Amino acid sequence: MATVSAMSDPVEQSVLPDSMDRVVLRRRPEGLLTWDDVELVQVPLPELADGEALIRNDVIGIDATVRSWLSPARGYLPPVEMGEAVRSASAGTVVASRCDAYGIGDVVTTLAAWEEYSIVKDDYFSTRLSGPDPDYDMAGHIALYGSTGCTAYIGIVDVGKVAAGETVVVSAAAGATGTIACQIAKLLGARVIGIAGSDDKCSYLLDDLGLDGAINYRTENVKERLKELAPKKVDVFFDNVGGDILDAVLARIGLHARVVLCGAIAVYNETDRTPGPSNYLNLLQQRASMTGFLAIDDVPRFGEIGEQLHEWVDQGRLTYRVHYFDGLESSVDALNAMFTGANTGKILIRP
Amino acid sequence: MATVSAMSDPVEQSVLPDSMDRVVLRRRPEGLLTWDDVELVQVPLPELADGEALIRNDVIGIDATVRSWLSPARGYLPPVEMGEAVRSASAGTVVASRCDAYGIGDVVTTLAAWEEYSIVKDDYFSTRLSGPDPDYDMAGHIALYGSTGCTAYIGIVDVGKVAAGETVVVSAAAGATGTIACQIAKLLGARVIGIAGSDDKCSYLLDDLGLDGAINYRTENVKERLKELAPKKVDVFFDNVGGDILDAVLARIGLHARVVLCGAIAVYNETDRTPGPSNYLNLLQQRASMTGFLAIDDVPRFGEIGEQLHEWVDQGRLTYRVHYFDGLESSVDALNAMFTGANTGKILIRP
Repeated sequence: MATVSAMSDPVEQSVLPDSMDRVVLRRRPEGLLTWDDVELVQVPLPELADGEALIRNDVIGIDATVRSWLSPARGYLPPVEMGEAVRSASAGTVVASRCDAYGIGDVVTTLAAWEEYSIVKDDYFSTRLSGPDPDYDMAGHIALYGSTGCTAYIGIVDVGKVAAGETVVVSAAAGATGTIACQIAKLLGARVIGIAGSDDKCSYLLDDLGLDGAINYRTENVKERLKELAPKKVDVFFDNVGGDILDAVLARIGLHARVVLCGAIAVYNETDRTPGPSNYLNLLQQRASMTGFLAIDDVPRFGEIGEQLHEWVDQGRLTYRVHYFDGLESSVDALNAMFTGANTGKILIRP
Repeated sequence: MATVSAMSDPVEQSVLPDSMDRVVLRRRPEGLLTWDDVELVQVPLPELADGEALIRNDVIGIDATVRSWLSPARGYLPPVEMGEAVRSASAGTVVASRCDAYGIGDVVTTLAAWEEYSIVKDDYFSTRLSGPDPDYDMAGHIALYGSTGCTAYIGIVDVGKVAAGETVVVSAAAGATGTIACQIAKLLGARVIGIAGSDDKCSYLLDDLGLDGAINYRTENVKERLKELAPKKVDVFFDNVGGDILDAVLARIGLHARVVLCGAIAVYNETDRTPGPSNYLNLLQQRASMTGFLAIDDVPRFGEIGEQLHEWVDQGRLTYRVHYFDGLESSVDALNAMFTGANTGKILIRP
């Protein structure tokens, strides 16, 4: 394992270990990921080419989309191939560099993998967050200021165009992106109703985040509860889930509603063709729209959006939670927690 | 039956008949409409209240949405109730008036019904097209310059935002709205592929309208054919059909594609819950949108849009076809032709 001294003194990079742990794909998972699908292997530390640096992954972020990259279909990025490390965002510390953009000790975020060290280049997916700073809040970056919070912000502000007084519904509302989306919608003056999978999560949404309503989709009828909680119908639906929940909310959208497709946790683990939202025709009746977006398109704006999020946090108006899994041997559990709802807040692996 | 003289001389309105034919709803249809669901009855000619005029419906237009109004669910207009006349757009001649907006002989279009005469008021749904003019092209208005053409225009121009060089797909492309949508997209410089239900219709699309491709969905695999005809994927899909065709095209949409929901012929006759588009998640992968619209929201713009359509027709760049059904006793067949694909062009009833 890398020593802290590697961070404080460029000369010390020679103390890096010869090998590192990595989780590689062995077969395409069906349903939830298992250790029959991936393997924890030890591999030599990568050699750097010109233009590359090596970061120690201090925190690896888990997103639902990680699961989608393990499926064979090409999405917005190519699937992870057999023998390759499982792709995941991370934040870490530069421990060796042959790249002008990153010096030893710099804090960098990148699209890395389930591995202790990753190669980073000066590319679209990588950003230098800070010079050497042992106190830098890397967990905060992955949980909020980086792609997670920017996804919530872009979905609510840019795609959803939430206005004060509107009714906003968020699914997977107690999840990492959902909690931020709910809070940003509240900050914009909307009435916000969260859908989550347990009474504890619903209590968190109501009591801690101050939402106007919460629905436990495991014990309540979403469509019926929406009739009560959103009698004037739904103006914006920020959907992380898909499946039956999307269909139920589509039944309750109002005139000129905006359905914002952020993800579809309900279907990422499905191997069969999943049914689409039967109520999509309500988009026609209500002159409404359903729009997909990927924050990855807006990486150049993350800095500016992150500053806004920082400001809200500093003002005590925005909060987030982190759920740590320690060691790469916990990585499968960490990913599956996204889908079983076992987590509270952003899931981070500390390799 | 009204005499022509009623049009040329206001004094002649006394020659109006005492009674008229009307088709009224007797029970909610399941699937295609039958004469067990509706009845042709004779009723007294309506008495006019202040602010009302009476028009003779010279042409009644058939739209797919007429079928949706016979189902119990409230859409953008309330359903037709038992005993009420089947709602349909029409154009006709004012034969009696107690309304300042319309004089005897004026040509008026309104949201009328399957009946020989209808009451018209000075309201959102009614427009005076012309003063007395026995040559006024009422069929052209219903088939093109009115809501049919305006629907195509708004869907392609305003919602679809079709740009030159883009690939546009239109379903029910040989239908009344589809043919206009295809031609407007061509006028904007797009590559246009039409989906229709017979080889004859496909030949019409290719040979008469000059489209770049045509798919017979009854004999060809839409998804596979789209791979050949739209190798760079689909930028705009103007959908009149829904169901499997929508799903097939969703599988082939490109980055930032716009799916324009104009209608869903495939599902209007379904009594069971119909499956939604399983490939809707491609909206997320492709950062695409699916937007419903109803031209009825833009009635105040119909005049201006109609002028543009007229200009294109005068230039020989836009064409349309009309498919007449004669007599209200043909009204059930006229409506069902929309769904069986028996028509070529706009379906009009001449009561």
